[in-house]
Amino acid sequence: MQDVKTYVLAIGEKARAASRLIGRAETAAKNRALLNIADRLEAGERTLVSANAKDLEAGRAKGLDAAMLDRLALSAKSVKAMATGLREVAALPDPVGEITGLAYRPSGIQVGRMRVPLGVIGIIYESRPNVTADAAALCLKSGNACILRGGSEAIHSNQAIADCVRAGLAEAGLPEDAVQLIGTTDRAAVGELLRLEKQVDVIVPRGGKGLIERIMAESRIPVIKHLDGICHVYIDDLADHDKAIRIAMNAKTHRYGVCNAMETLLVAEGIADAILPELAGLLTAKGVELRACPKTLQRLPGAIPATEADWDTEYLAAILSIRVVAGLDEALEHIHRHSSQHTEAIVTEDYTRARRFLREVDSSSVMVNASTRFADGFEYGLGAEIGISTDKLHARGPVGLEGLTTQKFVVLGDGQVRGS
Amino acid sequence: MQDVKTYVLAIGEKARAASRLIGRAETAAKNRALLNIADRLEAGERTLVSANAKDLEAGRAKGLDAAMLDRLALSAKSVKAMATGLREVAALPDPVGEITGLAYRPSGIQVGRMRVPLGVIGIIYESRPNVTADAAALCLKSGNACILRGGSEAIHSNQAIADCVRAGLAEAGLPEDAVQLIGTTDRAAVGELLRLEKQVDVIVPRGGKGLIERIMAESRIPVIKHLDGICHVYIDDLADHDKAIRIAMNAKTHRYGVCNAMETLLVAEGIADAILPELAGLLTAKGVELRACPKTLQRLPGAIPATEADWDTEYLAAILSIRVVAGLDEALEHIHRHSSQHTEAIVTEDYTRARRFLREVDSSSVMVNASTRFADGFEYGLGAEIGISTDKLHARGPVGLEGLTTQKFVVLGDGQVRGS
Repeated sequence: MQDVKTYVLAIGEKARAASRLIGRAETAAKNRALLNIADRLEAGERTLVSANAKDLEAGRAKGLDAAMLDRLALSAKSVKAMATGLREVAALPDPVGEITGLAYRPSGIQVGRMRVPLGVIGIIYESRPNVTADAAALCLKSGNACILRGGSEAIHSNQAIADCVRAGLAEAGLPEDAVQLIGTTDRAAVGELLRLEKQVDVIVPRGGKGLIERIMAESRIPVIKHLDGICHVYIDDLADHDKAIRIAMNAKTHRYGVCNAMETLLVAEGIADAILPELAGLLTAKGVELRACPKTLQRLPGAIPATEADWDTEYLAAILSIRVVAGLDEALEHIHRHSSQHTEAIVTEDYTRARRFLREVDSSSVMVNASTRFADGFEYGLGAEIGISTDKLHARGPVGLEGLTTQKFVVLGDGQVRGS
Repeated sequence: MQDVKTYVLAIGEKARAASRLIGRAETAAKNRALLNIADRLEAGERTLVSANAKDLEAGRAKGLDAAMLDRLALSAKSVKAMATGLREVAALPDPVGEITGLAYRPSGIQVGRMRVPLGVIGIIYESRPNVTADAAALCLKSGNACILRGGSEAIHSNQAIADCVRAGLAEAGLPEDAVQLIGTTDRAAVGELLRLEKQVDVIVPRGGKGLIERIMAESRIPVIKHLDGICHVYIDDLADHDKAIRIAMNAKTHRYGVCNAMETLLVAEGIADAILPELAGLLTAKGVELRACPKTLQRLPGAIPATEADWDTEYLAAILSIRVVAGLDEALEHIHRHSSQHTEAIVTEDYTRARRFLREVDSSSVMVNASTRFADGFEYGLGAEIGISTDKLHARGPVGLEGLTTQKFVVLGDGQVRGS
């Protein structure tokens, strides 16, 4: 193979060229490609599973742990799930070309904004091979070309999926190079990709914090970050008792390893006696370990004392830190200091406090009387999700097709000139 | 003075603290502050002009040229213009807190988006002292704290303006530290500001390409770029003759030194004989130098032959490069290769070509039958403008108050939990 720099640059140039074609492709052609790919994945199930077997074998030889092997594995069921995902994306409305706000100005020109693709998106991800199909589908539907760089442990699986994707594009009359997989496991390829400022418009990393931090430090291209979350639920003293219990239980125990799970519970002192013992009983029955501030310990003598580090820890596990606060102000202060600005919720029946919480909490999702678990592209009606952004610029919160597009101004005139 | 690093960090910390207060400030208080500042600038005109005299004297001693001294100078008229600008910003609608798209989801939760300030904005600019008032006003109205770093040659003028701004804030009961001017001319302060990732959310540079490129290379904080433009007008062979002449003349000669002036004219071969000699006569009469491709030279033997470099040059002067193209496809190809993605216009009466141009040109503003000079926040109805972004992420085209804000998701529930 030629040297990595030349190889990655060539991929970038091909992506840039393909992006002009995919960016103007008709909705019907893009949808046809998505449905073709879904059919090809299902028809190619045996090819995919046998390519995946090579990765699994190499993974076992390399000593990957059971959880990693599990994430790496493709089955008839996961192939079916990828195909279903593609068909769902095909059914979504096309975001490209929508013109909003077109209005006449005093000069006589009409000014509006047209939604357009970003151009070329670089996606860097770890182990799960299904990301290859999911990410390609979202980029394709939003009119973007993409360059995919999966984990080296999934290279055969990713290649087999990418083959289906490219064949499905070609069959629909669209450029194969709208989706390219970096076909080398050389780690230098990531560095080269992050330097393609002229060819790549945005980088979307999907993976653990280590991966994302490395990309942030190294990239010359803007990055849409998808970080994890230290999410808070604050139970106000004017909360409805049943809603408080239900929301806290769901936010913590519905799933443990997800970024929108509650990691810290804040309870107003005025309701702590009424809530904490009951809630602690339910949580403990589910096997959740409780790490408590001194005031919580007074009510839950069996809990573990929390350290300062607990307030800044994302457990992603059956562990919950609990703090009793005087009221809303102290809760807002705690959130301001310790939140990762992902998702926070208040449980209260008080109108003014709910309104203050909504306004003052600076997180990508802010909720009243609902579980933090709802912070999700599907639950929000975006139809799909490439991840959740805790950035402030461009895309914030769950990122769907819209987050993979931008807007340009369009001006329609009839010969108008300025200053006349 | 303490060391620069400590000094700039302290400013960052004060800005972060002030941003929480200004972010939740009532619209009436923000408007009151803006009107206070306008009054104070007018009342303090003599103080401002005498502070400015110190800068002008130092500038002359340093050998600044006439154009730079002109940009640096404050007069009764320019003070009045600043005050008027502040009152106009006060009259604009408050973008903060607007909730859009709030709709029920099948789960029973309501999901919408609330417009919120970015937080802390760092503004780095050159010579013109009026930017101090303009930028502070836009940041204040959009609920952001700002850190201003003006050119060292304007330090006394900027300080005097900032004093009015801070006094006006305090008088309205808002935190003075919502607007802070870096009070040292030490160049190291810029580098320190660009490293305040935790305290500053976005950097907005205003100045020449050199300044912007240095900031891009050095900043650890996202930058909203406000670059210059190589703008194209394409006169199609199905253009209306009078509109074509009028638009080309306005786009080139209305003002020369602005980023939305036309730098390259593309003319379809089929209309070149009918347009070029007449247009060249009008342009030459205005003193515009013409640099022509070979096919243009056949029609305008007096023009200067264009070199390859001309197609990539932003003249910001009474110079125009002209190229005859076969038609729309060649025009699109030229624009794709040479445009700075700022603003491009087509002149045509053909519906399908107009539609293709709007869709396929990847610039922040795309126009049909209108002068590129309209690419401007006021002309677009944004009410104000901090600059024009040629970036794709976050803000694109003229950037007004909305570009200084972001959105968060808000979720209103009634005890809903996920998966039930």
